[in-house]
Amino acid sequence: MRKNIALLGATGSIGAQVCEVARAFPDYFKIRVMTGNRNITKLAQLSDEFDPDLIWVPDEAGADLLLKAKRRRSREIITGQGGLSVCAGYGGADFTVNALVGRAGLVPTLSAIESGKSVALANKETLVSAGSLVTEAAKKNGVEIIPVDSEHSAISQCLAGSEAKHIDKLILTASGGPFRKWDAEKIRSAKAADALKHPNWRMGDKITVDCATMMNKGFEFIEAMWLFEASPGQIEILVHPQSVVHSMVRFTDGSVIAQLGAPDMRNPILRALSYPNRLKNDFKKLDLTECGALTFEKCDDERFPCLGIAIGAAREGGTLPAVLNASNELAVGAFLRGELGFYGISDIVGRAVSEYKNKPLADIAGVAEAEAWAEEHFAACMKEAV
Amino acid sequence: MRKNIALLGATGSIGAQVCEVARAFPDYFKIRVMTGNRNITKLAQLSDEFDPDLIWVPDEAGADLLLKAKRRRSREIITGQGGLSVCAGYGGADFTVNALVGRAGLVPTLSAIESGKSVALANKETLVSAGSLVTEAAKKNGVEIIPVDSEHSAISQCLAGSEAKHIDKLILTASGGPFRKWDAEKIRSAKAADALKHPNWRMGDKITVDCATMMNKGFEFIEAMWLFEASPGQIEILVHPQSVVHSMVRFTDGSVIAQLGAPDMRNPILRALSYPNRLKNDFKKLDLTECGALTFEKCDDERFPCLGIAIGAAREGGTLPAVLNASNELAVGAFLRGELGFYGISDIVGRAVSEYKNKPLADIAGVAEAEAWAEEHFAACMKEAV
Repeated sequence: MRKNIALLGATGSIGAQVCEVARAFPDYFKIRVMTGNRNITKLAQLSDEFDPDLIWVPDEAGADLLLKAKRRRSREIITGQGGLSVCAGYGGADFTVNALVGRAGLVPTLSAIESGKSVALANKETLVSAGSLVTEAAKKNGVEIIPVDSEHSAISQCLAGSEAKHIDKLILTASGGPFRKWDAEKIRSAKAADALKHPNWRMGDKITVDCATMMNKGFEFIEAMWLFEASPGQIEILVHPQSVVHSMVRFTDGSVIAQLGAPDMRNPILRALSYPNRLKNDFKKLDLTECGALTFEKCDDERFPCLGIAIGAAREGGTLPAVLNASNELAVGAFLRGELGFYGISDIVGRAVSEYKNKPLADIAGVAEAEAWAEEHFAACMKEAV
Repeated sequence: MRKNIALLGATGSIGAQVCEVARAFPDYFKIRVMTGNRNITKLAQLSDEFDPDLIWVPDEAGADLLLKAKRRRSREIITGQGGLSVCAGYGGADFTVNALVGRAGLVPTLSAIESGKSVALANKETLVSAGSLVTEAAKKNGVEIIPVDSEHSAISQCLAGSEAKHIDKLILTASGGPFRKWDAEKIRSAKAADALKHPNWRMGDKITVDCATMMNKGFEFIEAMWLFEASPGQIEILVHPQSVVHSMVRFTDGSVIAQLGAPDMRNPILRALSYPNRLKNDFKKLDLTECGALTFEKCDDERFPCLGIAIGAAREGGTLPAVLNASNELAVGAFLRGELGFYGISDIVGRAVSEYKNKPLADIAGVAEAEAWAEEHFAACMKEAV
């Protein structure tokens, strides 16, 4: 039976690869909803190809552009924050794929869940900033959060058939990013172009910078806590530059189960879309005799302070991870625009996390408040620096 | 609840490690039955330590020695083939561990199964020579065959929670043995002492030579067919010199699940004994940051012809694998005694497999017939060589 998909963030890197997967399996997946943001040309192309019931763009200007670009009928296009929630919980979809970037992903995730849709979640910021709210809502509504990240997809596969009491550690692997072998001085002067050269994965700009700072792994640490009900002490990070072992689980008897595959996001995307099924595909396959030696090393917390900052925030809980997330998003944006040096990211985020007066996370308004605090803090830091 | 164990082959390498595991977990395991063969001194020590209900030795001479060596009461000691079957199906045991060496393991495995005992099977020759009979008997008696080999223990862990229709390949890893980097000329002149230097594992002599010839991997190939109901086309062999990845499963979507651990037989033994539980232990643990790079390569069929011979016999089925097994056991014995060169093993076994007129495997008598043929064939080959 064909699965109907609401795809949030169709024009980003993950969204485009979700489209590739849907294109490869037309008998299995039908994209019923598509959302885009600024790249209207691409959204027009994709909506022409996939012919969804519903297309979302942020505003009327976007809608006009979309109407001009392709022969879409206006009744198929909706706009605004309310419209995005409609898309996230679209009745004609079997589940929602959230491939939005950054903080924008949280509210649509909750909308999908509250509409009784399971969510294939590529937007890790959702769980970083409001993991407790999201997982509680999912439980309450009887829906699943299916990981799209290769690491969490790997962990979920490694955990199959196991008992919670036998889990010792979830071991998230990290490529180490483009600066793994750079010394601190060289990293200090790294530009956006350097940080965007990820050694293994094809991804969007924001997450690629997060990989370079290792903040991405910190976010995945927090994500793993919520997805797998793990305590911070149950999660380890291991640098594995080849990105072949996507993550592992160590059990109480010392046995380690690992998931391996070619570093191609279409694999975990297909897994999330077809779960619990497994579909034969033509995507790049792993050949262990060709991929070279697999190595593992510890992460250097001194050159990559973001990981430690994130884990610290994870241990604190409350609204602190939302501050971490928002502060990082703003700092990464400034770095990408050339307004902030590479270590400016960890400096600002580290200050935000230590200066914020933490509160319990009661509701979505608490996330918004924390984010607003992070925005003010960020603005003040940037002003100070001038 | 403590599990009662009938341990066949207590004095061999695996048997001794089963005793180590039982020693480490006195609250979990109680050895109720112990059998030994020629090493009466060791059997006396072990039986004194573990105080089993029943001890088996091959004959009265052994029984006398045992009585002299330690303060055992004679009513606890039994002998002969019938006695071994009594031990294998001992009523006071919850399951039987078969750690016998070679062809001698088959009948006791069947005795255990027919007495309704699950078998933790370290004796791979059981499944090589009579896989169909053994697995049918296990099904009929509603008991399980639990693998003790690290490779099959790994595969069973990788398969947990999966569906048979999603399995693409079972990938058995092989260390490659001590001659992995030797050229054919050097291998040709290898002596028993060279073959017994296994790079990673601590095992008995016979299996260590089987590792050097790669016949061990051929046996494991056949074992995997029976344990996991796999066709020969579903099994691959991959050389992995570090013996950290104990085996893998590739699923239809290209995802690979691997089991990793320190190369210490006590780990898979503990797994088999405690299955489906997992017990915390003090055995050597895997540290991926310390174990060096993990590499994978294809097996060289020219330098190691035994693997191809075994896979050929596996594809043929019938009583041919019993001929393969018996011929190999005799040839390895001759090699260990210095009566045969290293490539004499594959020459004789290859000839046996190609000269034997294969028959369907109907019953245990068919195995005995095939083994008798292999014995005659072996004797003729050795005579020829003189």
